[in-house]
Amino acid sequence: MNINQKAQNYLKVLSAETITNAQAGNLGVCLGASSILFSLFKDHLNFDVSDTDFINRDRLVLSADHASALYYSVMSMFGFDISLQDLKNYGKKGSKTPIFAEYGKTDGVEITTGPSGQGVANAVGMAIAEAVMEERFNTVGFDIINNYTYCFASDADIMEGVAMEAASLAGTLKLAKLILLYDSNEVSMDGSLDLTNRENVAKKFAAMGWNVITVENGNSYFFCTHAIARAKKSTKPTIIIFKTIIGLGTLKEGTSVVHNEILTQEELKILKQELKVKESFFIPSDVRELCMASTRRGKLMHEKWNQDLAMYSSTHPELYKSFSMFFDRKKISFDRILKNVSKYDGLSTTKINHYVLSELAYQCPQLLGGTADNAIESLAYIENAGNFSAGYKRGKNIRFGVREGAMSAICNGIALYEDFITFETSYMAFANYSLPAIRLRSIMQIPVLSFFTNDSVVESGSGAAYQPIEQIGSLRAIINNTVYRPCDYKEIVAGYTYSLKNYLPVCFALSKQNIKHIDNTSLDGALQGGYLLKNSGAKPQVVLVASGSEVELALEAEKELSKKYKVNVVSMPSLEVFEKQTAAYKNKVISKEADIICVLEASNDTKWYKVLGGKTEVFGIDEYLENSIEKDALEKYGFNTKAIAKFIETKLKTK
Amino acid sequence: MNINQKAQNYLKVLSAETITNAQAGNLGVCLGASSILFSLFKDHLNFDVSDTDFINRDRLVLSADHASALYYSVMSMFGFDISLQDLKNYGKKGSKTPIFAEYGKTDGVEITTGPSGQGVANAVGMAIAEAVMEERFNTVGFDIINNYTYCFASDADIMEGVAMEAASLAGTLKLAKLILLYDSNEVSMDGSLDLTNRENVAKKFAAMGWNVITVENGNSYFFCTHAIARAKKSTKPTIIIFKTIIGLGTLKEGTSVVHNEILTQEELKILKQELKVKESFFIPSDVRELCMASTRRGKLMHEKWNQDLAMYSSTHPELYKSFSMFFDRKKISFDRILKNVSKYDGLSTTKINHYVLSELAYQCPQLLGGTADNAIESLAYIENAGNFSAGYKRGKNIRFGVREGAMSAICNGIALYEDFITFETSYMAFANYSLPAIRLRSIMQIPVLSFFTNDSVVESGSGAAYQPIEQIGSLRAIINNTVYRPCDYKEIVAGYTYSLKNYLPVCFALSKQNIKHIDNTSLDGALQGGYLLKNSGAKPQVVLVASGSEVELALEAEKELSKKYKVNVVSMPSLEVFEKQTAAYKNKVISKEADIICVLEASNDTKWYKVLGGKTEVFGIDEYLENSIEKDALEKYGFNTKAIAKFIETKLKTK
Repeated sequence: MNINQKAQNYLKVLSAETITNAQAGNLGVCLGASSILFSLFKDHLNFDVSDTDFINRDRLVLSADHASALYYSVMSMFGFDISLQDLKNYGKKGSKTPIFAEYGKTDGVEITTGPSGQGVANAVGMAIAEAVMEERFNTVGFDIINNYTYCFASDADIMEGVAMEAASLAGTLKLAKLILLYDSNEVSMDGSLDLTNRENVAKKFAAMGWNVITVENGNSYFFCTHAIARAKKSTKPTIIIFKTIIGLGTLKEGTSVVHNEILTQEELKILKQELKVKESFFIPSDVRELCMASTRRGKLMHEKWNQDLAMYSSTHPELYKSFSMFFDRKKISFDRILKNVSKYDGLSTTKINHYVLSELAYQCPQLLGGTADNAIESLAYIENAGNFSAGYKRGKNIRFGVREGAMSAICNGIALYEDFITFETSYMAFANYSLPAIRLRSIMQIPVLSFFTNDSVVESGSGAAYQPIEQIGSLRAIINNTVYRPCDYKEIVAGYTYSLKNYLPVCFALSKQNIKHIDNTSLDGALQGGYLLKNSGAKPQVVLVASGSEVELALEAEKELSKKYKVNVVSMPSLEVFEKQTAAYKNKVISKEADIICVLEASNDTKWYKVLGGKTEVFGIDEYLENSIEKDALEKYGFNTKAIAKFIETKLKTK
Repeated sequence: MNINQKAQNYLKVLSAETITNAQAGNLGVCLGASSILFSLFKDHLNFDVSDTDFINRDRLVLSADHASALYYSVMSMFGFDISLQDLKNYGKKGSKTPIFAEYGKTDGVEITTGPSGQGVANAVGMAIAEAVMEERFNTVGFDIINNYTYCFASDADIMEGVAMEAASLAGTLKLAKLILLYDSNEVSMDGSLDLTNRENVAKKFAAMGWNVITVENGNSYFFCTHAIARAKKSTKPTIIIFKTIIGLGTLKEGTSVVHNEILTQEELKILKQELKVKESFFIPSDVRELCMASTRRGKLMHEKWNQDLAMYSSTHPELYKSFSMFFDRKKISFDRILKNVSKYDGLSTTKINHYVLSELAYQCPQLLGGTADNAIESLAYIENAGNFSAGYKRGKNIRFGVREGAMSAICNGIALYEDFITFETSYMAFANYSLPAIRLRSIMQIPVLSFFTNDSVVESGSGAAYQPIEQIGSLRAIINNTVYRPCDYKEIVAGYTYSLKNYLPVCFALSKQNIKHIDNTSLDGALQGGYLLKNSGAKPQVVLVASGSEVELALEAEKELSKKYKVNVVSMPSLEVFEKQTAAYKNKVISKEADIICVLEASNDTKWYKVLGGKTEVFGIDEYLENSIEKDALEKYGFNTKAIAKFIETKLKTK
């Protein structure tokens, strides 16, 4: 048996033992796809185990995260900080080897991919980021950035719409350094793929502009490594279709039952006999030496890169300076942005956001993002920065196409490649398409700016399907996500500040309609989530709380109500940020002594009740508005001073 | 000018005038795609304007609903109940011609498609439903059901993942009577498609198993009608790629600016001169006569179908009986289901649901649904009913593949074809993928049963990405959607009853873990959304409210708390249904006199605060659980009697 074969056998046994030991994990893919990952790590992947954040490392995105036991095993073999003991701790509380690989828990794991399909789009994002860096910083003789992005994907990934959207965009953008390693075992959880997917994946990807390589024997090291070598030379993104046998070497190989299989000790023994492995949780010294050669290769390549960079710095001092400062956020002057956009006060927050974005771009070369085909309405593009395209990779505006789901997952990839400041844009009514990726982003705490425009039912003409009502609540309900619904330029800048300084994801709800100038708004207040706009004195009877376009209305209502009652007005652009303030601050803003705390927001979000407490009444929307092209639909629906005053008086009487 | 040309010219002008008159709508597609819809209605579509519910009618799904002005205009020409005055009322409040076509507002409009992509998947659902009917009821000489499903789609639809998922499944299932009319104008809202989508759509669809027809001149009636004629003969689903020019006949034709264009009176005049139309909102008598010939054809075909059916009834009396009873719901005995599944009390609600589903299938031949590749775990399949596939269209279990988004949109199509009882199944952690279609379903009020399994973080091992916490709140926040989170078989049957009797969509949150037998549960109580499980007397101090798997825990906590306090326990499987009850009933269940209303639910849903009022405290989850393969993660997190008792005591003290 040659050493490569031997190494793969030990790799298979390692992952099988990991799974049996933990009584958790998915065996099928670990036995079926070992050659793919082994050949990748051995011959191709550019990695440095002593510096896994090395910017020019190759990225590997494990979209098929049910292969995590295999992934950890191969990482362990190739010198990453995963010991055999860590494999024994697979899935245990606090271990660095969770059942499904997670960003931040294991050195070298690039991203949490979660539900099928997401990882493919994440990889497209990383490949976009690489292309940007390559375009901006490489010069003749100096390939400062030239890493590949590999994505390991399964039959499930290939069925998911988010992956297909991303693949279509990758082909359009000709992302040559993107290589999709498709473990085609033709079995999914419920059975043979025949029943669910008979498409010709090769032809489908070719039609999307991809280079396609098919490896008939995907369980052979030799064929796998040569295919990857060929893929690296492509001028288009490449999919390598590895035909593999799920659960290879077990009695149930090639069937769906082996997908979630956990071998018994007896079955494990049979597998080990077949693979000629006697020891448990063991890597023989010759195999370890084989792998260490690749680990050393990685280290040497990093050293060579350091030398190249030193030479680059003397040959191209200006470029080098840009390169080393590229991701620096400390230089951002939010004051300057605030000052420069103040002249747009009184416009819609959608319009103001356009100028904030362009001001930020002026200070930050690392700003990169775009829209799902609604730039014309959302205005979320950077002036004079061009579109990122196959022919112009210097462009800063990404045109994602009508692919909202992929857009959001791609942004996660861009943000994780390195510290890009990235943004995405959609209509609030379509925010549901983005939720899966926003959820993962929130779990990982990666800072993407999400812009959702047409954020309320201010016009009803397009009908219920286009009336956003519950979406802002769904965004706010995502744990560790933050929503800002600003009422003016100061509050917009607060949202940016909160995201950029804290490296946190923020979703913006932006108005279509203009919002009149509002006195006393405050960036500092908005940075605390909510603050008093109008203070009637020590003990108000009524506290009016509003967000975004309804703040204007709250101030109008205050004029009416203050004839009879002591009324405070609070602007609360972010419930999540407000929740985090001290009890003293919160009580100052929302006086506990008040008789009623009335929230004005054109949504049905119930989070207000939780954040503001037992006296809260929400004046919101619980139904779709009647279709009408007439303006002021919201006002006619009852979002007017008179109705609000009546609502509050009635509530006060029944208290 | 021949009469077909003349008719199309008047059609174009009608839609352009409709838009200009309303100052709303999208002109580009109306001028670019008129030949497609005109040739469809004139020569192919099987419709009866006097009975638009005729079961064997051809379905037309307007996925590209920005073509609504054109759609209404062509419907008006061909005798549907849309007058020229209705076109003048386009977009006005209460009109039957909303800006985007909506189900239920206009006779003959099949479905509200909303966001791009959804309509394509809806059409796949309708084609599945047709195939089922065809397979079950047609016999030699009697094609009782043989209608086509047409879907009009744009470049935006072709980019959306949900559409691509559905297309892949349609190819796999060989849905021969599905015809996608793709208006390929190579322009989307933000500009030329070159920047966002360069794929070869023809080859992509061929790879997915579709018949592909390309019409180079999609603005020619002759080529359009011949292409549709060819498509009808296919044994695979067909995409006709009509190369068209957006905004044809205007100064801005072929550009993105014409997409949302509204012509001025002056521009309209020029267009009308070019198209040789003098009148306003007018259909000349020769054009009307031309169209009426097709309208008559439709009526005659319906009459012929009636005659065929009469003959069928005498030739195949048994089949005819099945056919005429097929969609009858009155025969359903929920009592029988309840009785037969009672023996499974004490299992997980996921397992019990399996038996409820199979019992329902026993009574209802019109039950049809499936899973997104998780039948093995969700058990949401009908025993011994087979899989619906290209080769076996009698199967009742649809294997949607790992295509959650398309699954949900496809179910909408099945349910709207005719009164199928249809179901879909996914993990609660992946529910976000289904939200766009569930939202549209709720707007349309079409009854689909959604099963979301693994509905809480009872096990934490798979990590945050797989821990459902906020999803149930997002489902409950959708207006007119209903969520049931049952604690036993009676409450499951209540959810089914609520959906099936009221023709309403219901989402079920189902437990992975077994739930012990609970005394005093009640189908009637569950049909009111919530009810008393344990009544301590007239004035309780504490009301414990729980749903699903937490009801068991509430009863345990009651044992502890009742040593000190008077405690009521409420099971509340559905907040939405409970909200609709009378104030008297609600007050009986949730005693206003109590000092605290404590909700137990392993979610972060804030809707509880709104529904149960100011004294509500939610004992829920606000963060992801630590990964661990150990069992009882939820209990360790604090979902145990002791912690609950402490929580309540603390809250009582601070009140």
